[in-house]
Amino acid sequence: MTNSPAQAAGSLEGIRVIDLTRVISGPFCTQMLGDHGAEVIKIEPPERGDIVRSQGNIVNGFSWYFAQFNRNKRSLTLDLRSEEGKVLLARLLEEADVLVENFRPGVMAKMGLDDETLRERYPRLVVGRINGFGSTGPYRDRPAYDFIAQAMSGFMGVNGPADGEPMRAAPPISDMVASQNLAFGICAALVRRERSGQGDIVETALTNGLIGMMGYLAAEFFATGQVPARTGNDHPMLYPYGLFRTSDGEVAIAPSNDIMVERFLRALDMLHLLDDERFADNPHRMRNREALREILTRVTEQRSVDEWIAHLNRAGVPCGRVHDLRETFDDPQVQAQQMKIELDQGKFGRIPTTGFPVKMSEAPAAVHRGVPELGEHTREILRELGVEEAEISAMQARGVI
Amino acid sequence: MTNSPAQAAGSLEGIRVIDLTRVISGPFCTQMLGDHGAEVIKIEPPERGDIVRSQGNIVNGFSWYFAQFNRNKRSLTLDLRSEEGKVLLARLLEEADVLVENFRPGVMAKMGLDDETLRERYPRLVVGRINGFGSTGPYRDRPAYDFIAQAMSGFMGVNGPADGEPMRAAPPISDMVASQNLAFGICAALVRRERSGQGDIVETALTNGLIGMMGYLAAEFFATGQVPARTGNDHPMLYPYGLFRTSDGEVAIAPSNDIMVERFLRALDMLHLLDDERFADNPHRMRNREALREILTRVTEQRSVDEWIAHLNRAGVPCGRVHDLRETFDDPQVQAQQMKIELDQGKFGRIPTTGFPVKMSEAPAAVHRGVPELGEHTREILRELGVEEAEISAMQARGVI
Repeated sequence: MTNSPAQAAGSLEGIRVIDLTRVISGPFCTQMLGDHGAEVIKIEPPERGDIVRSQGNIVNGFSWYFAQFNRNKRSLTLDLRSEEGKVLLARLLEEADVLVENFRPGVMAKMGLDDETLRERYPRLVVGRINGFGSTGPYRDRPAYDFIAQAMSGFMGVNGPADGEPMRAAPPISDMVASQNLAFGICAALVRRERSGQGDIVETALTNGLIGMMGYLAAEFFATGQVPARTGNDHPMLYPYGLFRTSDGEVAIAPSNDIMVERFLRALDMLHLLDDERFADNPHRMRNREALREILTRVTEQRSVDEWIAHLNRAGVPCGRVHDLRETFDDPQVQAQQMKIELDQGKFGRIPTTGFPVKMSEAPAAVHRGVPELGEHTREILRELGVEEAEISAMQARGVI
Repeated sequence: MTNSPAQAAGSLEGIRVIDLTRVISGPFCTQMLGDHGAEVIKIEPPERGDIVRSQGNIVNGFSWYFAQFNRNKRSLTLDLRSEEGKVLLARLLEEADVLVENFRPGVMAKMGLDDETLRERYPRLVVGRINGFGSTGPYRDRPAYDFIAQAMSGFMGVNGPADGEPMRAAPPISDMVASQNLAFGICAALVRRERSGQGDIVETALTNGLIGMMGYLAAEFFATGQVPARTGNDHPMLYPYGLFRTSDGEVAIAPSNDIMVERFLRALDMLHLLDDERFADNPHRMRNREALREILTRVTEQRSVDEWIAHLNRAGVPCGRVHDLRETFDDPQVQAQQMKIELDQGKFGRIPTTGFPVKMSEAPAAVHRGVPELGEHTREILRELGVEEAEISAMQARGVI
């Protein structure tokens, strides 16, 4: 499946999202909703807007970092600290299906929108929120940041070379994972609302999302009481597996079970190694990993990465090159999957962003609209709300919008 | 928000999922659906079942690795290569809302369930699938595996020390992310189906999911044409940020903007550094990172990790300890958020797993049922389908179930 013609309606068509989020975690979530057809109104403070608008690589006056997280949205400026701003927000919420926020716990309550009030005033509303540690518990008020969530969730602790320090992932993975979890939770709550008429409050946290990814590493710790060791690019339980030296670089090879290992060794013309007691099964191969690595490398270094990839794929062995981002986006498969798309941003030119990872056959994700300039749709949205032109201008003069 | 009493109905109550998946990527997705109330029927080949049942840490005869991905499901054994098996699957699909599979592209078609047939026979069905590279494009038939997806997506290439090799994340992150994307996509398609009556085919891929996480790193590459450098635990655009040496270990500190940096330096009694031209703003601090690191470390190494965490949190600076998994699950916040839960597995005892990262107020995730033994619900499910007892026994004898 590939991407969509822009005119297709998405799965979430007719769902209106009021988006109070900024930086990464919230905007990534609401962008997922927008990609799939929801109408997203991004509310930003007048003057500066989302801080990411002025961060990262600015090309022709537009932040391409901001573009990565804010397509398929309209922008409305609104001073939520002002009384007038709060009144307008209340009017928007009356016609909304979803509200998403990523303030620190307590900020919404200070704005007069505690959980009880939200439930009472907007019983059909699905409220989505992301924070660092969750809205209960001793750290609820601590400031959070991706790097801290990577550290405290145990995620960093399992990553990195065996003889080195714990290693973060470079993408803000805790923000991204919590966003994806929230997008899922919001849609699950919408499914229920379609049936019951009742809204819900959905919450994800940067730390909790990463803890939820620990999978068999958590199982290993629970079962043994031992903290899983860092193993770099080696698999903790399987060998052969990892990066292998070739004549012109390294190739990633991952035979994940005995059948695959047999295929791999046959492809190397080394099937006889399975008759060697040291390598006869996976437990033995794990114990004699370094000896086997040396033997296998003597074979792999005789041919090039490309040769091995062609040869091993024919043999049905999972393998691939370690791509840098240029190689990734130049890759014919990545292009066939349209994982880079270009947004037509008018005077700002065409801005490339990553494509849609969720493909749908009938109601595909699409670029329904580009990335909004700050306040680009303020007047349009207020008009839709029935605010008079003179009033809009007056609010503008007062700095409310 | 915390977790739920077990009796609460989840958001997806009333949604029936036929689950043909195995190993990690599919089972993690269907577990998310089950956690939130969907009724999941896991179909496994007779005799051995999902291969993960015999992998990882086996305690009292039960794989705790399997438990991590298969709570809240019932298990039905069914030989899908047999004609009788296919007929039973067809009957199950008639009453299902969702079908999830993670075969290689083409396998479902060989079973007689190509996209066209699925759409025609089950127009209301939401079909979810995960594969390695997507079901179109030159690599569609290649075998996939998490490590290969980490390599080819560009994810490994941006992770790791500046002077070292690209570094994988230890959890099977491409499986987990594609699962989360699929759970989101399935629910989005269900929202549409509630409104239109029409099903959809939703697909995610291990590589595409990780490419979708590249965020500002992709933006940087698109904007500059330069491949982002690996920077280890340092942030590529911000300083101070990273691990700092203390008197008894390292502490992660992440002031993410100028206000936070000011707070951090004030907390260190080093605010005067901002008057030093070398450190006056972030671009200067990035250029003089090593000099500043040395100055700051001379201060941080005078106190312990615990002292710094208490002190910096009071000052509003994001910081934390790099936890190993024991420290993570012992952490009072993680406990308050119930990110470790125990499943009562009868004769297999109590099995701990990670908790629910998506919290809901009205219809929370819950342990509706435990982890099924292989074929534990075969008879029950076939009875529900109206199959006679004698026929069930005969099929058992023929090895169909």
